[in-house]
Amino acid sequence: MHQAGIVTPVQDRLHFAAFDVTTTSRDDLISLLKEWTAAAALLTAGKDIGQYGAVNGPDEAPPKDTGEAVGLPPARLTLTIGFGPGLFDKRFGLAAKRPKALVDLPHFIADNLDPQRSGGDLAVQACSDDPQVAVHAIRNLARIGFGRVAVRYSQLGFGRTSSTSRAQSTPRNLFGFKDGTNNLKLEEADKLEQQLWVQSEDGPDWMVGGSYLVSRRIRMHIETWDRTSLGEQEAVIGRGKGTGAPLGKADEFDAIDFAAKNADGEPKVPTDSHVRLAHPQFNNGAELLRRGYNFVDGSDGLGRLDAGLFFLAYQRDPRKQFIPIQKQLSRDDKMNEYIEHVGSAVFACPPGVTPGSYWGEKLFS
Amino acid sequence: MHQAGIVTPVQDRLHFAAFDVTTTSRDDLISLLKEWTAAAALLTAGKDIGQYGAVNGPDEAPPKDTGEAVGLPPARLTLTIGFGPGLFDKRFGLAAKRPKALVDLPHFIADNLDPQRSGGDLAVQACSDDPQVAVHAIRNLARIGFGRVAVRYSQLGFGRTSSTSRAQSTPRNLFGFKDGTNNLKLEEADKLEQQLWVQSEDGPDWMVGGSYLVSRRIRMHIETWDRTSLGEQEAVIGRGKGTGAPLGKADEFDAIDFAAKNADGEPKVPTDSHVRLAHPQFNNGAELLRRGYNFVDGSDGLGRLDAGLFFLAYQRDPRKQFIPIQKQLSRDDKMNEYIEHVGSAVFACPPGVTPGSYWGEKLFS
Ligand code: HEM
Ligand code: HEM
Repeated sequence: MHQAGIVTPVQDRLHFAAFDVTTTSRDDLISLLKEWTAAAALLTAGKDIGQYGAVNGPDEAPPKDTGEAVGLPPARLTLTIGFGPGLFDKRFGLAAKRPKALVDLPHFIADNLDPQRSGGDLAVQACSDDPQVAVHAIRNLARIGFGRVAVRYSQLGFGRTSSTSRAQSTPRNLFGFKDGTNNLKLEEADKLEQQLWVQSEDGPDWMVGGSYLVSRRIRMHIETWDRTSLGEQEAVIGRGKGTGAPLGKADEFDAIDFAAKNADGEPKVPTDSHVRLAHPQFNNGAELLRRGYNFVDGSDGLGRLDAGLFFLAYQRDPRKQFIPIQKQLSRDDKMNEYIEHVGSAVFACPPGVTPGSYWGEKLFS
Repeated sequence: MHQAGIVTPVQDRLHFAAFDVTTTSRDDLISLLKEWTAAAALLTAGKDIGQYGAVNGPDEAPPKDTGEAVGLPPARLTLTIGFGPGLFDKRFGLAAKRPKALVDLPHFIADNLDPQRSGGDLAVQACSDDPQVAVHAIRNLARIGFGRVAVRYSQLGFGRTSSTSRAQSTPRNLFGFKDGTNNLKLEEADKLEQQLWVQSEDGPDWMVGGSYLVSRRIRMHIETWDRTSLGEQEAVIGRGKGTGAPLGKADEFDAIDFAAKNADGEPKVPTDSHVRLAHPQFNNGAELLRRGYNFVDGSDGLGRLDAGLFFLAYQRDPRKQFIPIQKQLSRDDKMNEYIEHVGSAVFACPPGVTPGSYWGEKLFS
């Protein structure tokens, strides 16, 4: 059973939280995961996780549910758990169970990572079409975890709009370009086996049918971008801004022709363009399931919006997918003049829970 | 003509930006306001503010529109301009035109204001049911203003959900309580004249038909709140959490009975409860049009969500409305144990533009 949070068509809003585990007790950690699993089942069904308010009358106990999502439909809420490298240190006796693919990410050229926005022992990704619902879910899980985990950082994101009146269905990122055109498609079952899901030959057992998540908080310098000519913007991406079509082609979903040349002999899709450097053809066939969200977190005190992409990518093995692709991008991508990677993390996301089981049960058994 | 951004039923999402004027030229400021007015007309009609991308071909100029809202409906976008006290200093020869009601707010007890999130010479409030549309609008106005204004701070907010399947229509804040029950209602035309719109006897001329906006970024310590008993929570607000009804009553819209007593002789609605201290009966009849939004801006580095209410209130005269109410609240409101005012600003919002005119034309004429 695959994680619904990975295979559900992307929702409109994200609330992502990374946690530090503050308890050193393995039993406490297991109880927490059991409680979270039970709460997640209620939340994704649109139910309160307990009483949130009686009718007018004092009550000695704090309400079980914080209440701000009362009356709201779940709006396709999914919750996905991830286990970070820190979980496999000495504390919980899990060192031997650490997947080989769950590597610490290397330093990439120009990385400018804020440790306060990086890493985490656990992550929960809440996606919903309603931000209040996604916020409510994370907040209530954080609350259940009180004394056992602490929020390390959290991120809100927005992306696809729920409006159905859009002519085109590929949403645009804050550079104004369609983002997701050449993404892995959930319909391509064979490819998902190859690129997305951990297979039995990969091991470890508890991760088979799961996937690895790499998250990167990528600041986009939109003020600089906005002063760049359209020609430069399109050369950076390798696609047209209006249509989203590969340079030299007319339609968004046309195949990219890396051999096509302009009259001056230069390739139509520049060799330092983002889509070329990220394309499977130049990455040993490696692909990613990208499920990122746009963010705007106010401004940065220098008159610029603190805006960008909270990049989230799922994959079968980061050593063969995210890491080599990002190595190449960090070295040569023309887009680097306009972006800055400021947060980073990697998590092992086990397969979805079956009834009666809990998040990560196989890891602890 | 009243500002659509004040009288339109509240949209789901907010992007609010305060700007410093960086030019000292009155003419530059006027041109900016003209350009903003023209752009706002296009944006609220769901049109791009200019070319955003040609079909596959280099183009020497930066696109006029940043493009990320292409294909999105305006989703009820409204844009409201506000003029802060700083606009009336010596720079632009406007000192004599400063409305008496546009006072600098006094320091209130326990104010913990961050100057980086307070003040501003100009403000634009973008409200839309789609965050991408609200973000796009502010970003493009900031871009038009480049060299004349700089973003001082900006704030994203969410609130009412667009889902129509809610049984109740009053949205809930992050304390889990219905918020807006006893708000000024846009249908009460007489009251709006008394409480919301500047009248000719108030002056100055250019503000007649306009309104004053007070914004307060109020951090809500939700982790502390969530550990508080239901009885205490309801006593703090003065209403039931489930129903939203005044304590001692059954329905949300029942009138509050401040005289009703419990068996022990204590008032059912405590004297230090929020709704009592904020109620017109204890504030010389003063009311506010509240149009605030919930926010979650990640976490604060101490394991707590940076969450709260971006409080926005419109009124005829802050000296008679926001200031005395907030004086009383800051002194006695039980809620103060759970909140912290961290940002503050006040703006004069002129009446809506008529065709052919521009934002603030009467101020400069
Ligand atoms: C702010 C940073 C980024 C922006 C604005 C961005 C934007 C885009 C855009 C506009 C496209 C073309 C449309 C599409 O096929 O989806 C694209 C494609 C792609 N991007 Fe990114 N991207 C960013 C970061 C990354 C990172 C960090 C990676 C992975 C390390 C990545 C991997 C890819 C891949 C694999 C493709 C598809 C290439 C193809 O097969 O045609 N991107 N990106
Ligand atoms: C985070 C801070 C605040 C929270 C969580 C909050 C919450 C609430 C709630 C739950 C209600 C009852 C429902 C309703 O009638 O709308 C209410 C009422 C009200 N609040 Fe607040 N509020 C906050 C700050 C403020 C501030 C700063 C002011 C003004 C200075 C204010 C003025 C009012 C007024 C005028 C009412 C209506 C009272 C009545 O006539 O019954 N609130 N608030």
